[in-house]
Amino acid sequence: MISTITVFERSPDGGKGLARDTRVRWALEEAGQPYEVRLVSFAETKKPAHLALHPFGQIPTYEKGDLTLFETGAIVFHIAEQHAGLLPEDANARARAITWMFAALNTVEPPILDLVTARIVEGNRSWSEERLPLVIDRIRARLEQLSTRLGDADWLDGAFSAGDLLMVSVLLRLRMSGILDEYPNLAAYVARGEARPAYRRAFAAQLAINAPTTC
Amino acid sequence: MISTITVFERSPDGGKGLARDTRVRWALEEAGQPYEVRLVSFAETKKPAHLALHPFGQIPTYEKGDLTLFETGAIVFHIAEQHAGLLPEDANARARAITWMFAALNTVEPPILDLVTARIVEGNRSWSEERLPLVIDRIRARLEQLSTRLGDADWLDGAFSAGDLLMVSVLLRLRMSGILDEYPNLAAYVARGEARPAYRRAFAAQLAINAPTTC
Repeated sequence: MISTITVFERSPDGGKGLARDTRVRWALEEAGQPYEVRLVSFAETKKPAHLALHPFGQIPTYEKGDLTLFETGAIVFHIAEQHAGLLPEDANARARAITWMFAALNTVEPPILDLVTARIVEGNRSWSEERLPLVIDRIRARLEQLSTRLGDADWLDGAFSAGDLLMVSVLLRLRMSGILDEYPNLAAYVARGEARPAYRRAFAAQLAINAPTTC
Repeated sequence: MISTITVFERSPDGGKGLARDTRVRWALEEAGQPYEVRLVSFAETKKPAHLALHPFGQIPTYEKGDLTLFETGAIVFHIAEQHAGLLPEDANARARAITWMFAALNTVEPPILDLVTARIVEGNRSWSEERLPLVIDRIRARLEQLSTRLGDADWLDGAFSAGDLLMVSVLLRLRMSGILDEYPNLAAYVARGEARPAYRRAFAAQLAINAPTTC
């Protein structure tokens, strides 16, 4: 029995790997688990059939047997619990890795997503230009703290874990902004994540769906 | 061996229970675990001694023996894993409860926290008044979906879980805004959470520290 995840039939980012299915694909690849993909349109994610799987009308969802999950962090955690490779065996190290999962999603990602709101959702508002520096300063405040904690380590706490998987995924959203490059150790950290064979397979798999055909 | 959590010596909310230590206190009370509290000032949370425990300079932290955790969601999860009462035993039900933990913190809370940013952090900006309706509409969009999913159930998925604990805690932030009352089933859901003896004990414990002395 293999799992099925839902994925946008065409991601809003055009295949840059920023849609959240990439995180789940990456986790499944790290765990060495095959999976199937069901494509959905953006419109379909707002309809009852999809809302029954995901009450907030987003992707990805995860189905395996009679289990249905939504929420990327929870799906990645479930995969990490079921298979080796994403969480340490030592109980304390495992708890700390889980801490970094929550930190990535709850503390580091919200100010980063606010940049999307500021630039895209509210990009044509009268206050857009004046507000942007405030949004970016809030991101820098978090990155400064994260950079200090990471120091010159390869990963956030010992070996690569699901915490790193989510943190790298969250930081990747900043690639285009140039902000990440202000923190060389974080930029290198993200590059280490991207260099992992599992990430590369995940990225390629989503790109294959999203890349415009060249003809 | 009992755990120690850090708590603001005076919470910015003056004892309304919105500081994140209330979530951890509540989880510890549900699990029937005693705990100790170490008070820190806001200024102390930004200093090296506290940053060694919490890289983002926030409260609460959790220390037990040689384990140190930060990030409320991770602390609540750790407590829920160690003790009965916060996660179902059935594997699928457990995975779904964990999904609601992540959903509370990663999907429902960010737009709610944006209201704090809009009203307080950016409250004196020229765009503040004009922007507020956009922020509130994003909250309503999430609450509408959550209200639909909850329906007339008592809790989000079967028995009360750590997912409900975090979701109720997140929704409590909206109490003063009046927005919660637009969704009667969510308002009743929050009231059910607040009525739990464990919540009442947690609330009282933080209030005892924060309530202004009447003299």
